[in-house]
Amino acid sequence: MRKVAICAPATPLKRKYAEAVSQLAADEFPDIELTFHEQCFVEEGHFAGRDEVRLAALLECANDPAFDAVWFAKGGYGSNRIAADFIGRAQKAAGEKTYVGYSDLGFVLGALYRAGIGKPVHAPMPVDMKREGGDAAIRRTLAWMCGDDGGLEPRLSEKPVAAFNLYTLAMMAGTQFMPNLEGHELLIEEVGEYEYAIDRLLFHLAENLPALAGIRLGEVTAVPENDRPFGANPEEIVRYWCERYGIEYLGRAAIGHTAANRIVPFGLEG
Amino acid sequence: MRKVAICAPATPLKRKYAEAVSQLAADEFPDIELTFHEQCFVEEGHFAGRDEVRLAALLECANDPAFDAVWFAKGGYGSNRIAADFIGRAQKAAGEKTYVGYSDLGFVLGALYRAGIGKPVHAPMPVDMKREGGDAAIRRTLAWMCGDDGGLEPRLSEKPVAAFNLYTLAMMAGTQFMPNLEGHELLIEEVGEYEYAIDRLLFHLAENLPALAGIRLGEVTAVPENDRPFGANPEEIVRYWCERYGIEYLGRAAIGHTAANRIVPFGLEG
Repeated sequence: MRKVAICAPATPLKRKYAEAVSQLAADEFPDIELTFHEQCFVEEGHFAGRDEVRLAALLECANDPAFDAVWFAKGGYGSNRIAADFIGRAQKAAGEKTYVGYSDLGFVLGALYRAGIGKPVHAPMPVDMKREGGDAAIRRTLAWMCGDDGGLEPRLSEKPVAAFNLYTLAMMAGTQFMPNLEGHELLIEEVGEYEYAIDRLLFHLAENLPALAGIRLGEVTAVPENDRPFGANPEEIVRYWCERYGIEYLGRAAIGHTAANRIVPFGLEG
Repeated sequence: MRKVAICAPATPLKRKYAEAVSQLAADEFPDIELTFHEQCFVEEGHFAGRDEVRLAALLECANDPAFDAVWFAKGGYGSNRIAADFIGRAQKAAGEKTYVGYSDLGFVLGALYRAGIGKPVHAPMPVDMKREGGDAAIRRTLAWMCGDDGGLEPRLSEKPVAAFNLYTLAMMAGTQFMPNLEGHELLIEEVGEYEYAIDRLLFHLAENLPALAGIRLGEVTAVPENDRPFGANPEEIVRYWCERYGIEYLGRAAIGHTAANRIVPFGLEG
């Protein structure tokens, strides 16, 4: 990948993070040319612009044959609202690109994967620059774009794989965007959810998922303190539902809402 | 209804609320005999006892022909974990009962409705005694059990109806418990969720629901303040998704996590 277009299908990016990412890329990855779409910085209520504005920017980036990849600036929530129109209006050039992001962007990555358009990749985003050690996360994605596989999740097997935020995947179940994950190793991570909510989301997924090759659990961070302890930690919760529904629990994965978040190309790419 | 068994398929009830409800019933509804199962007061981590303990109490109450109704003590989370075994082991006497509750108990009410077992009813629960004005909520359910229809949601039409907590219904979609709501007026309410989360849950439901007669929005309470305004209030969010998916928006409903929560018998009972 050489030419990378950046847009924000969910929430807006602060300009200072775009500048910091551009500087890091210019200093260390001279072969990569990053183009931040101005839509990244639009703010309208919760979103980086209205649905039409975010959709237009995403289509511009994806359908422009001059770009090799689309990198999503930031998650937060909202890409589901434009994913159907995006898939419906994706042109030939969109199918030849790599799409890079995570968290809420799982809606777009999942929809692309289902539609067989381009190469969806779970990986750090420009917004990760704000984290402590976030430069390492940015460097990981940029190095991978340059062909360096050192930032891949190290436990990728010979089976097809996909990586999602748990809540995002749960909301995708049964929708027009849900990819067929049969036979996949599914990597999940979560941030900011109560343990009882994690339990409930796993119930929903266990009921809705096809036969997987197994589940790996990434990081579960910023779990709020409830008025009483749940009685099981996130890994125990995942083990419970895996055992109950006959899903193989494969252990941990190095993905999550932290600077350590690793790269997971969907399918057999890894 | 004369003899009512009370159990807690999700989280435990404080004994003082059971005592207050029993006192109110003894004082004002002498025809009703309330039996609080001791399991209501069991605490184990998040739950009112382990799955086996909650399941056993629910089956005892439901399968005992001496009782006319099962009243759920409190929501909170957890009834989904025992709903399958409950439905699978429900006996003839269970089919002749009325089941009364809301919130997390939507999992059980929905599962019963799908299985055609008994009469599921959305209504205030003993835990509502803790609210300001909660005695009125308890009185509403008890009066309805005595045949007084004054506490029914006033806008029930000639169409079949069902009432759910939004998040609970979203988690039920696609599962073995999801009832067929085709042609129904669907009443939804929510508590304690961010507006962006409400938006996301409605996306999930709009994608998963069959053709409804329409949606009514109950109360949406305790919405946390996000780091920035969402840009639409809960009713505007519901209108957005209804318009987008061709669902008729029918206006407001008097259900919710408040003392004003009205009674909604599922189906054509109202």
